[in-house]
Amino acid sequence: MEESTGRPTKKKVVVVGGGLVGALNACFFAKRGFNVEVFETREDIRQAKVVKGRSINLALSHRGRQALKQVGMEDKIVSQGIPMNSRMIHSPSGKQSAIPYGKKGQFILSVDRANLNKELLTEAETYPNTKLNFDHKLQDWSAETGQMTFARPDGSEKQINADLIVGCDGAFSAIRKQFLRRSRFNYSQTYIPHGYMELTMPPINGEFAMKPNYLHIWPRNTFMMIALPNLDKTFTCTLFMPFDEFEKITTGDEVIDFFQTYFPDAIPLIGVDALKEDYFRLPGQAMVSIKCSPYHIGDKCVIMGDAAHAVVPFYGQGMNAGFEDCIVFGEVLDQLNEDFSAVLPEYSRVRVPDDHAIADLAMYNYIEMRAHVNSKWFIFRKHVDNLLHVLMPKTIIPLYTMVTFTRTRYHEAVDRWHWQEKVINRGLLFSATGAVLGGSYLLIKNPPDISKLIIPAEKMRDRLVVLWTH
Amino acid sequence: MEESTGRPTKKKVVVVGGGLVGALNACFFAKRGFNVEVFETREDIRQAKVVKGRSINLALSHRGRQALKQVGMEDKIVSQGIPMNSRMIHSPSGKQSAIPYGKKGQFILSVDRANLNKELLTEAETYPNTKLNFDHKLQDWSAETGQMTFARPDGSEKQINADLIVGCDGAFSAIRKQFLRRSRFNYSQTYIPHGYMELTMPPINGEFAMKPNYLHIWPRNTFMMIALPNLDKTFTCTLFMPFDEFEKITTGDEVIDFFQTYFPDAIPLIGVDALKEDYFRLPGQAMVSIKCSPYHIGDKCVIMGDAAHAVVPFYGQGMNAGFEDCIVFGEVLDQLNEDFSAVLPEYSRVRVPDDHAIADLAMYNYIEMRAHVNSKWFIFRKHVDNLLHVLMPKTIIPLYTMVTFTRTRYHEAVDRWHWQEKVINRGLLFSATGAVLGGSYLLIKNPPDISKLIIPAEKMRDRLVVLWTH
Repeated sequence: MEESTGRPTKKKVVVVGGGLVGALNACFFAKRGFNVEVFETREDIRQAKVVKGRSINLALSHRGRQALKQVGMEDKIVSQGIPMNSRMIHSPSGKQSAIPYGKKGQFILSVDRANLNKELLTEAETYPNTKLNFDHKLQDWSAETGQMTFARPDGSEKQINADLIVGCDGAFSAIRKQFLRRSRFNYSQTYIPHGYMELTMPPINGEFAMKPNYLHIWPRNTFMMIALPNLDKTFTCTLFMPFDEFEKITTGDEVIDFFQTYFPDAIPLIGVDALKEDYFRLPGQAMVSIKCSPYHIGDKCVIMGDAAHAVVPFYGQGMNAGFEDCIVFGEVLDQLNEDFSAVLPEYSRVRVPDDHAIADLAMYNYIEMRAHVNSKWFIFRKHVDNLLHVLMPKTIIPLYTMVTFTRTRYHEAVDRWHWQEKVINRGLLFSATGAVLGGSYLLIKNPPDISKLIIPAEKMRDRLVVLWTH
Repeated sequence: MEESTGRPTKKKVVVVGGGLVGALNACFFAKRGFNVEVFETREDIRQAKVVKGRSINLALSHRGRQALKQVGMEDKIVSQGIPMNSRMIHSPSGKQSAIPYGKKGQFILSVDRANLNKELLTEAETYPNTKLNFDHKLQDWSAETGQMTFARPDGSEKQINADLIVGCDGAFSAIRKQFLRRSRFNYSQTYIPHGYMELTMPPINGEFAMKPNYLHIWPRNTFMMIALPNLDKTFTCTLFMPFDEFEKITTGDEVIDFFQTYFPDAIPLIGVDALKEDYFRLPGQAMVSIKCSPYHIGDKCVIMGDAAHAVVPFYGQGMNAGFEDCIVFGEVLDQLNEDFSAVLPEYSRVRVPDDHAIADLAMYNYIEMRAHVNSKWFIFRKHVDNLLHVLMPKTIIPLYTMVTFTRTRYHEAVDRWHWQEKVINRGLLFSATGAVLGGSYLLIKNPPDISKLIIPAEKMRDRLVVLWTH
């Protein structure tokens, strides 16, 4: 090893990538006493003037919070987020309807990606057995020996030997490239036909322009806009739309016409001039779904977070799933006494089905257009699910609740959801709910079996779609 | 350009890869008058002592022959192949049943991969506007400028500028790596849980050990063996089996026990000693299915053959699909006056759905275990399909016939097959066929709808499977 700490240390863990999952993972490994080094290609965002990279709003929920809790950061991060208790559905006429995410007191949190990343890096640095290296780009590495070479901006190189290489370097992972060359590594990357674009809704008279404790949604079949509140009392609006629709709009007046048709209530809140300008600042950005298996090579390398399973953002679980990876890896380390040769295959075995399930669920929320799927149906269905949950809290748990407010394994949540849908469809609950739901009973008796619509993530790409989500 | 031919030439086409599709493609481009160079990483197989690389037997059929015909090579290659008119199904008791591939006179051809490759390279060299370069490994290239750098074994480099780069460098394509880095490139690679192993069945008294004009098949649910005849009167047997089953067999005696249980009639033909030895020569080899889209970058780079669509070998269409790529690309060149900026996107648009269809079909033939899928059912079903085709040749065309003996677009063949299955299932043909099929009418009326079993290639990897094919 290059460095000597003067005392015998535990094994050396090199985390590649200092983003959200990399920084959190550094805390997890450091807390266990491993000798940890993090290598990040970009500069330290805490010193950066402009923070590059992904900026879609993040919705922190139970899984992510549990991971933060394990390194003592939950309260701090929660205090810096804005609770969103309900969705707020905006109809084309401007009517707003709130639908709670769960029971009273349950909420998801709008958090600032850059701020969260900075906090995690600062936390990692508090461990004496952790070292952060920025501006270090991975040049070469061996999964067999654990030897790694990083390039510095001045042209010099840094060599290091790792007992464990943890690839947390995101959807376009450099570490994953060596996995791709291995025989029997399964991999898929699927870009969806939609892009996204971010627009800012400024405060009005120093206050939020809309009610802050909501995730605002404008579902419009093939289009969708959402808005999440920020601490500075702005909202970040994200418009999701097929790329060819983005490209059809070429002038400021066309932007306004488009918003007038689909999101008229948002025009005065974003502002006509800002809208005309911001729309053309950047083209629509691509979204990719990545699934692979296994997550490890031998006993020296594992990938986690987006490097292992990038998901489309329509279930608000990307970061939460990545954070939960850290918990699950820790659980396997406990079970197998930190013996990497046993831990790595077991981690792949346990975690792959859950990550694949959330990737498919996220893609499922980005779904085929159906006559009965519109904002009214969505509102109705969510109310039914929540009501059934209140009536029989242990029997019917909405899928959204299992995914967002529990640590039920993703693939088990999906299995249970299929079962629940069957129960509901068969009308077993008809008598219990018919009276309450009154005139809607026909729909309860024969609701569309939405569980049948689920389609593997990688089959979705060529379809015309509707978004109804979060 | 590096070279000058002394006269104004047509555009420069660089074909990367001198395998089957690369060598054939060189002929296609040369015939059109393009200035063609082929770069192959390996040495010239015509001078090689040991030919490395894939060696699964090849079954040449209509699509491949049509491509060869366009460059005047069909008759020559056909004369070097061995016609196989029928499958020969071997039951566990040793009983053999022949099932014709199509109508009288229709056959597929067992061809020698190495010989075919040599013939194609020699043919390509007959064009004065074609140059072959062996021992040239792709180092670097730009899809934007067409500039390419190849490394020679002596350490020197060759630079070249291409107007069109054609990546025919196989399932592990180096050219495709740059595609993977591009936004909105969809890609999947799926390894199946089966491996394959080749065993040789020698001639007996200077003659074939089994009837030569057949593709011999031993279907055994999760296992399968096939055998194709060679010109030297040997058969190449290929055993397909899950990797974990391969690994269970660790001694020569266990090999014999295994064959005694599943392929007893093959033991004396391969020979006890050879079997004990050959089984351990190489471990089971992996098989991968690769799908991607699009096939081009800008107006300067396109991928074809296995580089674009590696398929599992269970429909005998890998090479045929790759050869047909050359025909289709030529058709698009004709339609669009060789304007690469129009040809490349159009080629992707036209060809992707067909290649995806054959990848899925090949994976479909490697299928979920079903109680009713065994060798008897397979034989029965094939006879029914052939019979219906004789009775109404324009209405019912077996899927195998469309794929193997026509140039019906693969995805149209699949669509038509779904329609036919529906027609048959609905019993519309019951009256026409009931009398002929006698006691079997119940199965005709309600056959399992095998078209519903089709599963996208990338979903198959975790399933227990049965092979019933060719």
